[in-house]
Amino acid sequence: MKVAILAHELFPDGAKTAVGVMRYGEYDVVAVLDRENAGDRVRDHIDLPDAPIVASMDEVESCDALLIGIAPIGGGFEDSWREDVRTALSRGCDVISGLHYFLTEDEEFVRLAEENGCELWDVREPHGELGVSDGVAAEVDAEIVLTVGTDCSVGKMTATLELVEAAKEAGVDAGFIPTGQTGIMIDGWGNPIDRVISDFTAGAVEEMILERGDDHDVLFVEGQGSIVHPAYSAVTCGILHGAMADRLVLCHEDGREAIHGYESFSLPSIPSYTKLYEELARPVHEAEVVAGMLNTRYVEDESDAREAVDSYAEELGAPATDPVRFGAEEVLEAVL
Amino acid sequence: MKVAILAHELFPDGAKTAVGVMRYGEYDVVAVLDRENAGDRVRDHIDLPDAPIVASMDEVESCDALLIGIAPIGGGFEDSWREDVRTALSRGCDVISGLHYFLTEDEEFVRLAEENGCELWDVREPHGELGVSDGVAAEVDAEIVLTVGTDCSVGKMTATLELVEAAKEAGVDAGFIPTGQTGIMIDGWGNPIDRVISDFTAGAVEEMILERGDDHDVLFVEGQGSIVHPAYSAVTCGILHGAMADRLVLCHEDGREAIHGYESFSLPSIPSYTKLYEELARPVHEAEVVAGMLNTRYVEDESDAREAVDSYAEELGAPATDPVRFGAEEVLEAVL
Repeated sequence: MKVAILAHELFPDGAKTAVGVMRYGEYDVVAVLDRENAGDRVRDHIDLPDAPIVASMDEVESCDALLIGIAPIGGGFEDSWREDVRTALSRGCDVISGLHYFLTEDEEFVRLAEENGCELWDVREPHGELGVSDGVAAEVDAEIVLTVGTDCSVGKMTATLELVEAAKEAGVDAGFIPTGQTGIMIDGWGNPIDRVISDFTAGAVEEMILERGDDHDVLFVEGQGSIVHPAYSAVTCGILHGAMADRLVLCHEDGREAIHGYESFSLPSIPSYTKLYEELARPVHEAEVVAGMLNTRYVEDESDAREAVDSYAEELGAPATDPVRFGAEEVLEAVL
Repeated sequence: MKVAILAHELFPDGAKTAVGVMRYGEYDVVAVLDRENAGDRVRDHIDLPDAPIVASMDEVESCDALLIGIAPIGGGFEDSWREDVRTALSRGCDVISGLHYFLTEDEEFVRLAEENGCELWDVREPHGELGVSDGVAAEVDAEIVLTVGTDCSVGKMTATLELVEAAKEAGVDAGFIPTGQTGIMIDGWGNPIDRVISDFTAGAVEEMILERGDDHDVLFVEGQGSIVHPAYSAVTCGILHGAMADRLVLCHEDGREAIHGYESFSLPSIPSYTKLYEELARPVHEAEVVAGMLNTRYVEDESDAREAVDSYAEELGAPATDPVRFGAEEVLEAVL
């Protein structure tokens, strides 16, 4: 499917969804919309399949869908994007969105979609008959590996997808459990855990594990948020207990010292994360932090990045890597 | 308001909502519906304002509303209650429900309510414009006290309401923050935290604290679930971080050894709960477990109950009481 990806003013560093979809998805990306970098190309900014960066949907040639590739805190819809969505729908393109704000509840978009015979896909709308957890995820055949984080936006989804790829390359029958909008866009299924009713948080993860858990030897579950996040810890905790993970992989971004967007909240030490995740997991299902993933995207020098990873591994007391820079296979043995 | 309370087959021990509303609410209860105990009176079973226990709504004389006083795991609507709801609506009574299953989404009930000019109040439907937490609950004038639990249904709401009453009697300007359907029915406002979107769990608690936090010197926040519950820990975690509590009161039921309804999950030791709640709270806002509440409803002998409370206090390393049996004032000094 040919898609244009909207990432105004945030491509690539603030556009987690756009970058994830471009790196791991099956889409053919024909353009990125970012009015601040219009005229550049994707490769000028990041090592991904190349495409032109344009200022608006008017400048995109033919495509099948417009995909909203940014997700601001709170998940709202910015009115400055409205014209691009209008243009897309008027041209008969579907619109794919992972925002909390549902396009299917926007009168103008619904009308335009009907008039032009196109679809609005709100990835974040939970599907199916969800319910409370039965506490049985551990009963599936697969071993469960969950990525957990020191904060939001440190690279949990990327780490998870890189682990799946590395495991498959090593001949392991590995499956992916997406829990957020980007993972769902990439894999084409899944429940957006941050959008389900809070009582069903663990249950929605459990449901996915029961659906896939007997088809694979290892399931890699995409974690969300952080257990110390002032706003999102509920989601993190529900995933930890609902997944009943056997092993945890702690994801962190090099240099991150405070919660992103909540700068008055300092991050605790790496060993205290390990302790907290393991102690919180234990009463439901014993889990061990077996490896670390360090996001070194802001470290220019390769040997500095290697040093940062080594120092992270030492703090963690477990093997670590930057899965994008050095590959997830470096920690695969510890994880499996 | 005159109400009949539906609690079939579960009154009083399995009817937390019914008992809570009868003990702390402002309603005039004219009958309890429990087909298993029909013919008895409330006082035959529990020390609450007396009323007849009847088999069905047909046997209730005049009343203004039928209140669903039981909340099964999962929050579904039992079809064996349908006839009572039908009868109530046909007689022009409102129906108040805290179930996950919304009466306002049931075609028959909606039609009957319209035909008879009565209201369906789904207490569990979140109201207002909820959003993610800003991490600012600690900025209100009031000190925040949160009840936390070793499990569901151990008496957190009761402990919270008894603390509010004891504080008021001691001349303290105390407020109550309800977070569940019974607390909301009793206090007439509040967000049902277990029903909000999981991303907004902490935010929905924060919103209530910001609304009331400058009007009182102490706010007592009703906790939910337990941080080690396989299904509900997400809600517990969101309330802990969203409330940014200064002090915690650990609620437990004497003799409870496993998670209710999830018997394969043993409860950890009391000291490990204290450690877990405090360590999980710390990165967001430092909180200390300052007192304990022990539910001794199944202990017949008064001196056995006293012994159980003393032994709980010792395990906890903090003063404890059974707020229903011995009064919350026994721990008030430690809590304030």
